[in-house]
Amino acid sequence: MSHKLLILAQDENKYRALIEEAQLEDLEFATQPESDVDIVLGEPSRIKTALGSLPALAWAQSIWAGVEPLLDPALRRDYALTNARGVFGEFMSEYVIGYLLAHERRIFQKFENQKNKIWEGSDTGTLRGKTIGLLGVGSIGAEVALTAKFFGMQVRGYTLGSETSKHVDEYFHGDNLLEFANRLDYLVNILPNTNNTRKIINADLLNALPQHAIVINVGRGPAVDESALLAALNQNKIAGAVLDVFEQEPLPKEHPFWTTPNLIITFHTAAPSLPEDITHLFIENYELFNEDQPLMYQVNFEKGY
Amino acid sequence: MSHKLLILAQDENKYRALIEEAQLEDLEFATQPESDVDIVLGEPSRIKTALGSLPALAWAQSIWAGVEPLLDPALRRDYALTNARGVFGEFMSEYVIGYLLAHERRIFQKFENQKNKIWEGSDTGTLRGKTIGLLGVGSIGAEVALTAKFFGMQVRGYTLGSETSKHVDEYFHGDNLLEFANRLDYLVNILPNTNNTRKIINADLLNALPQHAIVINVGRGPAVDESALLAALNQNKIAGAVLDVFEQEPLPKEHPFWTTPNLIITFHTAAPSLPEDITHLFIENYELFNEDQPLMYQVNFEKGY
Repeated sequence: MSHKLLILAQDENKYRALIEEAQLEDLEFATQPESDVDIVLGEPSRIKTALGSLPALAWAQSIWAGVEPLLDPALRRDYALTNARGVFGEFMSEYVIGYLLAHERRIFQKFENQKNKIWEGSDTGTLRGKTIGLLGVGSIGAEVALTAKFFGMQVRGYTLGSETSKHVDEYFHGDNLLEFANRLDYLVNILPNTNNTRKIINADLLNALPQHAIVINVGRGPAVDESALLAALNQNKIAGAVLDVFEQEPLPKEHPFWTTPNLIITFHTAAPSLPEDITHLFIENYELFNEDQPLMYQVNFEKGY
Repeated sequence: MSHKLLILAQDENKYRALIEEAQLEDLEFATQPESDVDIVLGEPSRIKTALGSLPALAWAQSIWAGVEPLLDPALRRDYALTNARGVFGEFMSEYVIGYLLAHERRIFQKFENQKNKIWEGSDTGTLRGKTIGLLGVGSIGAEVALTAKFFGMQVRGYTLGSETSKHVDEYFHGDNLLEFANRLDYLVNILPNTNNTRKIINADLLNALPQHAIVINVGRGPAVDESALLAALNQNKIAGAVLDVFEQEPLPKEHPFWTTPNLIITFHTAAPSLPEDITHLFIENYELFNEDQPLMYQVNFEKGY
């Protein structure tokens, strides 16, 4: 059986070249929505716009991890939605460890001291022996856990589901969220955006953290109660935060986060979606699709991930 | 046989408390140079000053890796000099990987963009696939090599001696220094300060590096020809440098390094000498000394390390 693919991504030409190179069996390309397009590959927001013009749609592969635009209950769910997973772990690990080391080694303070020609030989911290808490331990969390263990850290994991990574020293679930938080040096959110994870980093959780703790959000913006985080930082209830994602992006110019002390902003750059990586994933899934096998990383529309 | 120890370190009280806690056999403490002191533990410069007042000196344990003050050929060499080794590798690895990630992830540029409220979503780099070259592969180099391999880097090692670390992908020796340098993304100096290593990072070596390369010096200041590095940075022959050590420390206020573009200064903080770690080393060596066994990490006065 023949299939027709529509690519809906800013990097459309790059994706098409990479997929053509793989010479996939029985695959044609469409350049606009057509009645016989059964596969789309692209950004969730663009796929959403095209949903009404794709009567034969059977499978949509998102190039991002987050697929919120397609989860609106008013939209059709009569196709298989798969998201990008398994490709962000290494980038996320480098991001998390990079900012942990920046904190331990006072990289930003040194940068400022150099500007002021101040020789500042204060002692440095180390990751060894510190405790990291992962909110969410999927494929990204497992990679961060592995890296944290390499650096001699203690790893706590809070999950809604199973205990799949063996690099987590201690798992927490359900009502044990505040207990999970109470001895962390670093809290890292990697949860998807669902009804259960919205504002999970709220005043209660922030109060449960030690005063020297650093909060890092590489998951989704809505996981953080932004007012509560702002208050915690301004009142020195925690020592700092590193935020890659926000309720509204780009962060509005008037948002207080830009100038909040001990808050670092990284502009949603933690893990790029590289066409090479996503194409590799698409090809694996295409081969399964072409053989009527279950797809990898299919999203449950109810759960939202 | 009874031994008498003199501690010559800024953290004298801390060292004394830690050593007393270990209740070492046959060990007394002196509080100033005395004729029967046979062991000193301390900073090389302070040991040097005391050398003339310690007629019974048999063993000096340096709390630092660098022992230059004691290598002056005019000074006595009738005692065993041991330096601190094996305790700095993890700190050094965290330092190197921290600044590599700071470069890949454009941490300083993001820090400045945040100040200017600029949302800067440019793509990030990764350590994966990059090549690091280690000038010197002793115990510290081996630890950096292991960490670099963990992050998927290619590791080249240039050594004067043996090929002891299995985490180095390719070794270079002797005349092959420029070949070693020609494909590096990162050059890291970890060599001790000897006649053979002075100004090893000179104009020739800097010219051999790719233009996008970053030079990191965590070894000793004299390894870098400071004028040549200054010229290479000002002429964009390399992309940047991270320097922990210098010819003169603290760096003089008028030194051009303070304001050289793409040059990061870290004030000799890469690997702190922690009394807990050094005491552990001292105790191991004391037990060997007390049994007339060869000491660990004995310095060859001729070689200088």
